[in-house]
Amino acid sequence: MVKINLKGKDLITTRDWEVEEILQVLELAEEMQEKRFSPEFTCVLQNKSFLMFFYNPSVRTRQSFEIAATELGGHALFLEPKTMRLKSKKTAGETIEDAAKVMDRYGCGLGIRILEDKISTYGEGEKIIREYARHCDIPVVSMAHDKYHPCQGLADIMGYRRHLGSDLKNKTILHTWGHGALARSHCSVQESMLICSRLGMNVRLAHPEGYSLDEEVIGEVKKNCSETGSKFTITDDPVNAYKGADVVYSRNWMSEQAYAGEELNKEKEVEKALKLTDWICDEKKMEITDNALFSHPMPVDRGHEVTDGVASGSRSIIYDIAENRLHVQKAVMALTMSD
Amino acid sequence: MVKINLKGKDLITTRDWEVEEILQVLELAEEMQEKRFSPEFTCVLQNKSFLMFFYNPSVRTRQSFEIAATELGGHALFLEPKTMRLKSKKTAGETIEDAAKVMDRYGCGLGIRILEDKISTYGEGEKIIREYARHCDIPVVSMAHDKYHPCQGLADIMGYRRHLGSDLKNKTILHTWGHGALARSHCSVQESMLICSRLGMNVRLAHPEGYSLDEEVIGEVKKNCSETGSKFTITDDPVNAYKGADVVYSRNWMSEQAYAGEELNKEKEVEKALKLTDWICDEKKMEITDNALFSHPMPVDRGHEVTDGVASGSRSIIYDIAENRLHVQKAVMALTMSD
Amino acid sequence: MVKINLKGKDLITTRDWEVEEILQVLELAEEMQEKRFSPEFTCVLQNKSFLMFFYNPSVRTRQSFEIAATELGGHALFLEPKTMRLKSKKTAGETIEDAAKVMDRYGCGLGIRILEDKISTYGEGEKIIREYARHCDIPVVSMAHDKYHPCQGLADIMGYRRHLGSDLKNKTILHTWGHGALARSHCSVQESMLICSRLGMNVRLAHPEGYSLDEEVIGEVKKNCSETGSKFTITDDPVNAYKGADVVYSRNWMSEQAYAGEELNKEKEVEKALKLTDWICDEKKMEITDNALFSHPMPVDRGHEVTDGVASGSRSIIYDIAENRLHVQKAVMALTMSD
Repeated sequence: MVKINLKGKDLITTRDWEVEEILQVLELAEEMQEKRFSPEFTCVLQNKSFLMFFYNPSVRTRQSFEIAATELGGHALFLEPKTMRLKSKKTAGETIEDAAKVMDRYGCGLGIRILEDKISTYGEGEKIIREYARHCDIPVVSMAHDKYHPCQGLADIMGYRRHLGSDLKNKTILHTWGHGALARSHCSVQESMLICSRLGMNVRLAHPEGYSLDEEVIGEVKKNCSETGSKFTITDDPVNAYKGADVVYSRNWMSEQAYAGEELNKEKEVEKALKLTDWICDEKKMEITDNALFSHPMPVDRGHEVTDGVASGSRSIIYDIAENRLHVQKAVMALTMSD
Repeated sequence: MVKINLKGKDLITTRDWEVEEILQVLELAEEMQEKRFSPEFTCVLQNKSFLMFFYNPSVRTRQSFEIAATELGGHALFLEPKTMRLKSKKTAGETIEDAAKVMDRYGCGLGIRILEDKISTYGEGEKIIREYARHCDIPVVSMAHDKYHPCQGLADIMGYRRHLGSDLKNKTILHTWGHGALARSHCSVQESMLICSRLGMNVRLAHPEGYSLDEEVIGEVKKNCSETGSKFTITDDPVNAYKGADVVYSRNWMSEQAYAGEELNKEKEVEKALKLTDWICDEKKMEITDNALFSHPMPVDRGHEVTDGVASGSRSIIYDIAENRLHVQKAVMALTMSD
Repeated sequence: MVKINLKGKDLITTRDWEVEEILQVLELAEEMQEKRFSPEFTCVLQNKSFLMFFYNPSVRTRQSFEIAATELGGHALFLEPKTMRLKSKKTAGETIEDAAKVMDRYGCGLGIRILEDKISTYGEGEKIIREYARHCDIPVVSMAHDKYHPCQGLADIMGYRRHLGSDLKNKTILHTWGHGALARSHCSVQESMLICSRLGMNVRLAHPEGYSLDEEVIGEVKKNCSETGSKFTITDDPVNAYKGADVVYSRNWMSEQAYAGEELNKEKEVEKALKLTDWICDEKKMEITDNALFSHPMPVDRGHEVTDGVASGSRSIIYDIAENRLHVQKAVMALTMSD
């Protein structure tokens, strides 16, 4: 395969990347997994610094990015808003332009995480990340924002390729809403649907009334499916949705109302979601799939999104996918940030 | 000496390790101190990541583990509960099993610190650490918990070996309660008594009424002393306890009442402890020892646990012992975590 | 040039260093900028640890020191007071002596940042840093304190040398107060005036009534100017001060009243400062300079200290100076901390 030069490229969503570019990341990630501490990889970011800016805290993302930088020979800085003194509607401080232009001088790349509770309207998180990117020559990577979570999407696909083979055409993935106590962002599931549809999978979406995802994203997924000749369906049936699926991705997300313009009330979201107890991925539903893999971006809300039996069962690939975060991020960093 | 293979071994307390294994750590630590930045050591954890999870913050422990990883060529991640979103009695979140199984994929080792004020009953901290260990193939190291502090115990012994010679048999160590304003855990003194008794030292314990340590630990120390032929004594005499001692270890710890089941009230503990002003290690008491070394795991509560004269005197080895934390931890990490 | 041995030297203010020593840092910094990742530099602090202790949080300082350590092959630890358990007037804890003597065993250098709001009287921050230095053999570097900010001063000068040539004699720098909403420390501007006057620049200071700087510093700047044959002037004219300047440094700082002994009230300071709207660096004022460079230690309070037009204009060197922080700190660390 001819290598595509990705040096300097931002990764805000995989939508912005060509399929060939995505495949190049996945192939390098697979090679990096196999030869994890090989000297050809441990020198890639030698003495370089990757800046991680967490508007929102994180578990997996922080660990996997910090370790990715370390395994490539570099270092990741853990930055929080309290140490950034940024300008906001309420406080004086530094503009994003100034913050970005200095980080551009210091680092080899910039990761940003910004979710629903740190912004006032849906879409603002992505706007903020794109504003950083506009003022930086170094690559900007989304570490999850209100709309997308590109590294999670890449990690998901790496898992499906490993367990289903590298040609995912005509495989069927079900993205189903799960009830739960964590009031989650749309970003992981939206990214997953987008990347799965780009790679030719049939995409099924199941959720109760009131839990629609971003219309514009749904439109894009439909278009992708029609272009690759795969099927896209939406249903509100929490059981039949599972029929014949190859992968089941069960995950809670917030309702449309959470995005209706008022201040985000997570307690109310949780209260509402916990009532919809039919929406759990369990052994019985999994029986009507085509021996489906269980997929989840973690942390898992066990007993709500999924039963222990499924999450810890033999078809669960949640730990593999969590591990993949490391490998895909190393691949993205190597391809976009090294000389 | 034949090298014992310690690869993959957890270190939750030195009780779990054979004396020969402990000696192997100490000998390597001594060699690492002598040749601190030698290339044979700086490549041991090259590009590897050690995960430090602090339920409780710390001074020495964080510095010494983070620097240990750096000096072995690796990197230590500083993780706090607020960034971990763990499940608890009150909040939804990730199970220890899930958190552990992912960290197992990412890191070369996992350190955990969890003290009295983060748990509801004595012993729970150790249970939590052992739960992580059960779900991890990578070694789990206690960075201090409610019961034990193995790396502190190793650092103490390394100091005594340096100043008293490597054969500690028949040397006498006094562990004495000190009054003070910091309401401290039992972990350091319990670990110290255990490891000193394993290595043949006479162990004396002095404390006022109401300040007994864990009975089960005391039983174990007695057994160790009887096995090595050394003496174990307990007294409530804050002066005569010092007679003929080779090492004096003066340290505050919380009363039995703190462990009686109610929520931990540090203010009350401090108030009570500060009244017992006889319990201070001073020059006069040190005069009746056998020119004893002064030992303390730091931070020292000067003017309460010990006078400035003793803590800064010529027989104080507190900075040596603090330094030893680095060397013993490097040795433990090298022996358990490297390939 | 004969190399002066700077191994072990503290950097609390550039006042403490000879001009030749300062020039040596600047020349090495310039070389390090040119050959940023050259192997001769990336091994300088290999596997060594630099301890950064932030009584106050910071943006640029933390990033630039952490990355400086990384680019020299070492590692910087990010330490905050909550993790240090230090003794204070109100709380029991560890003495500075004990904390310093242990860090001395662990690290290759210690950086400290402590500003007005963490102390009770002006000058106390410097006293605290000098107390750490007294108990450490390893070099102590101020990362900004109430009186001085040596690394900022070095970065400023590196910028002026780049844009005006390495001989700064007879060039004129205006340090002018700017109104603003951030109630800033005197440290950056005081350090800048001191180092500029040491290197032969004419120093002008402009501020409204009530905003005098430390008299003792002013006295020293006067003395420096008279020794190098340059001019020092103070004015309260926010416009004419600009006439013929080669560099304009516009920055907010707190009023004399903030230092009058009461508890620091930043809200009151901001309220007072925001009224003095004449005090802004704008295009019109810049027109009467000698095509002056615009200089600022960042973060910039745009619209108050300076207009967007000037801050983002072609003569603004703010990002260069921010970048220089990295290079001068690498040079200081290499010269004082490596073997």
